[in-house]
Amino acid sequence: MEGQGEVLGPDGQPMSKKALKKQQKDAEKAAKKAAYKQQNKEQQSQEDGAHEKENEDVSEGRYGTLPLNQSQEKVQRKIYKICELTPELADKKVWVRARLHTSRAKGKQCFFVLRQQKWTVQALAAVGDRISRQMVKFIAGVPKESIVDVEGTVRGVGQKIEACTQQDVELHVDQVWVVSTAAQRLPLQIEDLTRPEGENDLATVNQDSRLDNRILDLRTTTSQSIFRLEAGVCRLFRDILTQNNFVEIHTPKIIPAASEGGANVFEVTYFKSKAYLAQSPQLYKQMAICAEFDRVFTVGAVFRAEDSNTHRHLTEFVGLDLEMAFNFHYHEVVDLIGDMFVHIFKGLQTQYAEEIEMVHKQFPAEPFKFLEPSLRIDYAEGVALLREAGVEMEEDEDLSTPNEKLLGRLVKAKYDTDFFILDKFPLAVRPFYTMPDPTNSKWSNSYDMFMRGEEILSGAQRIHDPDFLTKRALEHGCELDKIKGYIDAFRYGAPPHAGGGIGLERVTMLYLGLDNVRKTSLFPRDPKRVTP
Amino acid sequence: MEGQGEVLGPDGQPMSKKALKKQQKDAEKAAKKAAYKQQNKEQQSQEDGAHEKENEDVSEGRYGTLPLNQSQEKVQRKIYKICELTPELADKKVWVRARLHTSRAKGKQCFFVLRQQKWTVQALAAVGDRISRQMVKFIAGVPKESIVDVEGTVRGVGQKIEACTQQDVELHVDQVWVVSTAAQRLPLQIEDLTRPEGENDLATVNQDSRLDNRILDLRTTTSQSIFRLEAGVCRLFRDILTQNNFVEIHTPKIIPAASEGGANVFEVTYFKSKAYLAQSPQLYKQMAICAEFDRVFTVGAVFRAEDSNTHRHLTEFVGLDLEMAFNFHYHEVVDLIGDMFVHIFKGLQTQYAEEIEMVHKQFPAEPFKFLEPSLRIDYAEGVALLREAGVEMEEDEDLSTPNEKLLGRLVKAKYDTDFFILDKFPLAVRPFYTMPDPTNSKWSNSYDMFMRGEEILSGAQRIHDPDFLTKRALEHGCELDKIKGYIDAFRYGAPPHAGGGIGLERVTMLYLGLDNVRKTSLFPRDPKRVTP
Repeated sequence: MEGQGEVLGPDGQPMSKKALKKQQKDAEKAAKKAAYKQQNKEQQSQEDGAHEKENEDVSEGRYGTLPLNQSQEKVQRKIYKICELTPELADKKVWVRARLHTSRAKGKQCFFVLRQQKWTVQALAAVGDRISRQMVKFIAGVPKESIVDVEGTVRGVGQKIEACTQQDVELHVDQVWVVSTAAQRLPLQIEDLTRPEGENDLATVNQDSRLDNRILDLRTTTSQSIFRLEAGVCRLFRDILTQNNFVEIHTPKIIPAASEGGANVFEVTYFKSKAYLAQSPQLYKQMAICAEFDRVFTVGAVFRAEDSNTHRHLTEFVGLDLEMAFNFHYHEVVDLIGDMFVHIFKGLQTQYAEEIEMVHKQFPAEPFKFLEPSLRIDYAEGVALLREAGVEMEEDEDLSTPNEKLLGRLVKAKYDTDFFILDKFPLAVRPFYTMPDPTNSKWSNSYDMFMRGEEILSGAQRIHDPDFLTKRALEHGCELDKIKGYIDAFRYGAPPHAGGGIGLERVTMLYLGLDNVRKTSLFPRDPKRVTP
Repeated sequence: MEGQGEVLGPDGQPMSKKALKKQQKDAEKAAKKAAYKQQNKEQQSQEDGAHEKENEDVSEGRYGTLPLNQSQEKVQRKIYKICELTPELADKKVWVRARLHTSRAKGKQCFFVLRQQKWTVQALAAVGDRISRQMVKFIAGVPKESIVDVEGTVRGVGQKIEACTQQDVELHVDQVWVVSTAAQRLPLQIEDLTRPEGENDLATVNQDSRLDNRILDLRTTTSQSIFRLEAGVCRLFRDILTQNNFVEIHTPKIIPAASEGGANVFEVTYFKSKAYLAQSPQLYKQMAICAEFDRVFTVGAVFRAEDSNTHRHLTEFVGLDLEMAFNFHYHEVVDLIGDMFVHIFKGLQTQYAEEIEMVHKQFPAEPFKFLEPSLRIDYAEGVALLREAGVEMEEDEDLSTPNEKLLGRLVKAKYDTDFFILDKFPLAVRPFYTMPDPTNSKWSNSYDMFMRGEEILSGAQRIHDPDFLTKRALEHGCELDKIKGYIDAFRYGAPPHAGGGIGLERVTMLYLGLDNVRKTSLFPRDPKRVTP
């Protein structure tokens, strides 16, 4: 919604009629200028042709640069997708709109590759009856990454074209029209952005340069595949929960107080007052459970003002959160979440096999392994495994990041799974709302879940008794007046419940075996980056 | 995700071992105390019984208050949902977990109603062989809204029970155990919260009191229905777009500059610097189009620092946004959006008929009407309709809110639809990135969509030429350095594209014919409210 009501001028005030009129005129002029500019380019290219071979151009009217599309007309024309170009279409004339990926002129011929998301096809213009030398020259001069409309005939090829996804056909062109011209010099080359590390000692691009030129970086087959798969994670998460009678909710991001501990929270100027950005939907999804929603999930931005500059921390990321009332034991919830992950992993495996392959071409990784049902081990067993491997630590000591990684490898070696659930964490290392174990409050009814040795979900049974919750909040040094609304939610009858929060970007990163969470965030935010 | 890595103490620092140990002990004590407290309550109620009729209580061990659920054991017991209690289960003994909605003791009997989300069933305990006087007294004393486990036999009834959703059966109880006790005094009564305005001159609750006690307000059948339907809007939106090859993306909410005009934007303290909350995903979804995603949608929080205290403005709401490359004319996009709304409206009609009926019981409204395909009229025609109705306005003047409402009524009268598309807005009242009409730049290739006379979508063809975009940005007084990343996105080839943004809460409100957008936001935020 661009306007939530009235539209205002740049100064935030309604514009005067005179100002409106002037603005219209200016806009009209600018549009004309932009159209002229492109028509002139076209004329220029035709004139270039004329120099070469006097007034004769057999291709005239079949190539050039189109004027700026302002929706001048409704053209009835079928446009084929590159992925549709297969031998079944052989000898058929088709229109394609795509990017000029690469081009190579050689004497009287120009070979060029058209790209559309993850698909590519080779095209060929050769001087002949209908293709002029000028037209070939024009095509060869179109800057890479420009968008072109190409009419051509699909032709089968004798030898597979290894460099393209459409290996069995090429396109013999009749017409080439530039829809949008890219700059002559690109800051980065798509080939460099797509190249696996170390291949033929050719250049690759570091993470920061990629992000500085994110628009180009996102055009690689790798990025296209990553974000399609990430959309799949979201969809599979929602669909399986919806099937299990969860209701999708939306929790506020602007909150009145730094409710989950003040350290890592962003402050917002809220009119004449202060507010904060939610570090998770935790309190609100629990309040939804108190409000009788029984089972809820939510997908949304969460914010962490941590000055952590690591491969896996972002200041803004997408949380996949769920919370659910249970009847007798929080393992009802743990089992459901475990099954949910199996559903997601299987869905990715079957529905995104092509994307996974594409990503692994550039960033090789072992396929992701999991068990069905999911492996669940107690924290104490995890610590025992680490001690056996020589780690010196207390039974109820928190896991350091290197020890998490090591535990992942030990579990993989023992159980052959990249996914497992670590249950019954020490109470002391968990948030105040975590339910203690019923028999030994050194432990708690809480759990983390891991992929390739990194935490991707944290969750627990929550305390649903307001007095007990108050006591625990005080022990944790929480200011009660700041969480009054939260604690009051439990005063009108609250069911036992448990849940968890998942970091979407981490799941995608670890499923694919990538090395940096910035690769799985469309426009990542960290302590040093808020652009583009 | 509760922790994005390590878990810290309340002061944001890792806790010492000693502190951890102390905390464990305290938690252990508190848990025991909470459990004891409830066991004592139970014992007390049994002692009360003992006073009345000496040591004899035939119901002993079949009622009371359960200790705090800390997942002590995994009970194998089927729990029925209230909606499953139908005559097919007659004479079957079942367990149900639900809220005590109301109870009424009368001599040796206690009738009570159990509620679960939108479903209710009547239950009955009568003194007899297995039910003691003490047990009936205990049940009658359970505070409303408490959660109880009830075992009972399903019995068919001669006369329909009008007050409950399960009208053909009642539950004859054997056991009643309180799982979670509600406070004796509730700040608001569920009956009052659910009552239609004006019924028998009984009390209803104003909007602010509702929101101050949102947990109770959300428990009404009305709220339960509203938010289930709202989840449906989201799901239908995503599913139809996914079917149409849209990719779901997530755009950053923290942005480096007040990119869409500085007036209505919230400022965030970002480490040692400043950042802002995105007023829409506009620029980022367009950048995704430039990054070759072809068709994208996103569902997420958007923020408006407008000091507008109306029935339809929120400072934080959920945006359903889409953006799509088109081939020749932006009407390709308009048509797709129009069809998308038809799909959503039909889906709601068929899949949420019960919820719609529930809401209309409390807040009556005409059923929502729409045409297939959707009605599209030009702005000029809209103005003509208004002028015919006596409104004095210029042909290219912006629509005031009352005139929007009036136009909605005029269109309804003429075309019999509550949904329509108003196309070709005056350029001057639209944002800088709006594409002017190709023949007359007084107009633009932009549109709003309306439900019951209120705007729910705003959209347009966008300018995809970087030079033209720059010119228009300057004319609107934008600071170019603040939108450099955005404008640069168009320098590497950009397809013609159009899209729109939808306010989720408004769609839900207007589809149901509700009077206030706060009714369709789980925890609404406005200039005066950031709680609960």
